[in-house]
Amino acid sequence: MLNFDFYNPTHISFGQGHIAKLDSFVPMDAKVMVLFGGQSAQRTGTLDEVQQALGARQVLLFGGVEANPTYEKLMQAVEIAREQKIDFLLAVGGGSVIDGAKFVAAAIPYVGEPWNILLTGGRDIKAALPIGTVLTLAATGSEMNNGSVITRKSLQSKLPFHSDLVFPKFSILDPAKSFTLPERQVANGVVDAFVHVIEQYLTYPVNAPVQDRFAEGLLQTLIEQGPLALSQPDDYEVRANLMWVATLALNGLIGAGVPQDWSTHLIGHELTALYSLDHAQTLAIILPAMMQERRAAKGEKLLQYAERVWNLRDGEAEQRIDTAIEKTRAFFESLGVKTYLKDYNLGQDAVETALKQLEQHGMLKLGEHQDIDLAVSRRVLEASL
Amino acid sequence: MLNFDFYNPTHISFGQGHIAKLDSFVPMDAKVMVLFGGQSAQRTGTLDEVQQALGARQVLLFGGVEANPTYEKLMQAVEIAREQKIDFLLAVGGGSVIDGAKFVAAAIPYVGEPWNILLTGGRDIKAALPIGTVLTLAATGSEMNNGSVITRKSLQSKLPFHSDLVFPKFSILDPAKSFTLPERQVANGVVDAFVHVIEQYLTYPVNAPVQDRFAEGLLQTLIEQGPLALSQPDDYEVRANLMWVATLALNGLIGAGVPQDWSTHLIGHELTALYSLDHAQTLAIILPAMMQERRAAKGEKLLQYAERVWNLRDGEAEQRIDTAIEKTRAFFESLGVKTYLKDYNLGQDAVETALKQLEQHGMLKLGEHQDIDLAVSRRVLEASL
Repeated sequence: MLNFDFYNPTHISFGQGHIAKLDSFVPMDAKVMVLFGGQSAQRTGTLDEVQQALGARQVLLFGGVEANPTYEKLMQAVEIAREQKIDFLLAVGGGSVIDGAKFVAAAIPYVGEPWNILLTGGRDIKAALPIGTVLTLAATGSEMNNGSVITRKSLQSKLPFHSDLVFPKFSILDPAKSFTLPERQVANGVVDAFVHVIEQYLTYPVNAPVQDRFAEGLLQTLIEQGPLALSQPDDYEVRANLMWVATLALNGLIGAGVPQDWSTHLIGHELTALYSLDHAQTLAIILPAMMQERRAAKGEKLLQYAERVWNLRDGEAEQRIDTAIEKTRAFFESLGVKTYLKDYNLGQDAVETALKQLEQHGMLKLGEHQDIDLAVSRRVLEASL
Repeated sequence: MLNFDFYNPTHISFGQGHIAKLDSFVPMDAKVMVLFGGQSAQRTGTLDEVQQALGARQVLLFGGVEANPTYEKLMQAVEIAREQKIDFLLAVGGGSVIDGAKFVAAAIPYVGEPWNILLTGGRDIKAALPIGTVLTLAATGSEMNNGSVITRKSLQSKLPFHSDLVFPKFSILDPAKSFTLPERQVANGVVDAFVHVIEQYLTYPVNAPVQDRFAEGLLQTLIEQGPLALSQPDDYEVRANLMWVATLALNGLIGAGVPQDWSTHLIGHELTALYSLDHAQTLAIILPAMMQERRAAKGEKLLQYAERVWNLRDGEAEQRIDTAIEKTRAFFESLGVKTYLKDYNLGQDAVETALKQLEQHGMLKLGEHQDIDLAVSRRVLEASL
């Protein structure tokens, strides 16, 4: 096992009807900005429920935070929050709204140009407003981690930052809030959580049997519960299991003490920034090709993945690896998430443009061995055509 | 899945040589009381290493905290700490020292008789000194939870308390510090962690597949690594895996959203308080008998345990359950931890006395169904003879 630090102070309150607990989590004298996405928070009544739970507190609504939240939109929230002397942020939605709230929380007290928060990966954040979240979509894990990914449209850049100062103080996870989600978002969430686990699991062995078993348990549960979420959209238990899996997939636990990859994410981010593909779509495109490209470097873990996650125990090792990769692709496709660039009407042009962006963003040494250079990224992208 | 709250703010710093990091974790102006157990902390040099890392800080040593730490001893620390205006507690040792530090931390600012902290289960704790820990023994999980168990010798009482105010601020886990432990303590640690997992796993199904898989992963790892810790006592990787497993076994994670039992612990505590048996010895005695007694109520999970943890897939269900229970007992015995009262020279008298103590402590409705009354406890104890 590698040495590690693990720290995660977010208080999780999990269960149907838990939005009412906002009253005990948010300070009575807080001046709250509620950030949310589109109309669904209003249409489904979640926003009303939140406002009711906040009672007499001063509340300012800020809607319209996009999927892949943008610097441009969020800076409007920063200006308003500064003017109005907001002192608590409440994100109501999925990972995009929560990621957005984290940026706003750090940008409000930030001295200088807040885009520097992204350019420095969050290292120079000195303070941030407290954040709470009401999660309506299981996917990114942002509700229980210190990370955020922000897109700056004018630069076609999508960059991450991390800071312990933006851990949510609390997150309310009510699986029933995910009943009204479109099928596409549910499917995307399953793929997103799946690839989060893979990025922390499918590297090379370091004798960390518990981390491996936890990761495998999360993957098995996603394979089992993901299709049920689509076929039985009103099953509370299924939604509850998916929500908790997605949170555990990226709260730091399974990545503690093991190597991490993240190359699929970093290449995928470029495709989202350039072509507005859903985050999960880009992961579903890149991951199978990345697994094939890295089958030698990841050989031992690919075999373990084949055996323990897909029950592939017979036949030649290379054949088992091929089958495991095929099953991964078929799993994404079975959820309705397409796995080739051509399925999104993208071709060789997109490969060239993505490579230019990778170069411009300094993404020249990706992966757990830091050896995925632009030539390797090219092979992965071309294999995704 | 059941509704739940999960909150765990302890910062874990894991790795060989991490004691030096004390300098960044303990405030520079802190007045520190270092609590430790016997001579081993001094003999092995750990205490020197701690003092060196604390540098110029004011440090007061308090040694002699017992296995099963006593109110009588700890109240001496409380008095000294109050007199000396100690404002930070550092526990160096295993679960007993850490449990002791938690009591001292809560007792120092406590108004009234501190034994009330135990009598109220910690509910009336209003404040506590900050605690850090340097873990030298993987077993109880106290380094990353809010619980503590204290013994009052004069009353032959061993009682638990919980409070979010006594979560360690940080815990330094250096697996190399466990190399010098006596074999008995290593074996006890494995049994202790194993039964912690069982108390949160072996109840009844609530459709919580991730919690089940995490628990099974911990049990499998203990079965695999436990014997290696005895046969290869200088293997760092084995000690590292055991240390992290023991922490994860009782940090609240696998118990979130599922029913919990704890009857084996509560009956075991009486045997320790009365006869000074090691905590793990009492668990090894009670658990197999408890499994047999509760085989109907726990039937579904016992079958799952048999299949997934012990790979028992063939034969009649009742036979698989019997074999799983036998394998559990054999696992404890293989580590050198005996599983019958007679192995510790205890007989029917001990059963009667333990039952009287259970009655006196109000332990009349134990287990996940709250239906283990004194008659059931008697059958369990008599089956343990």
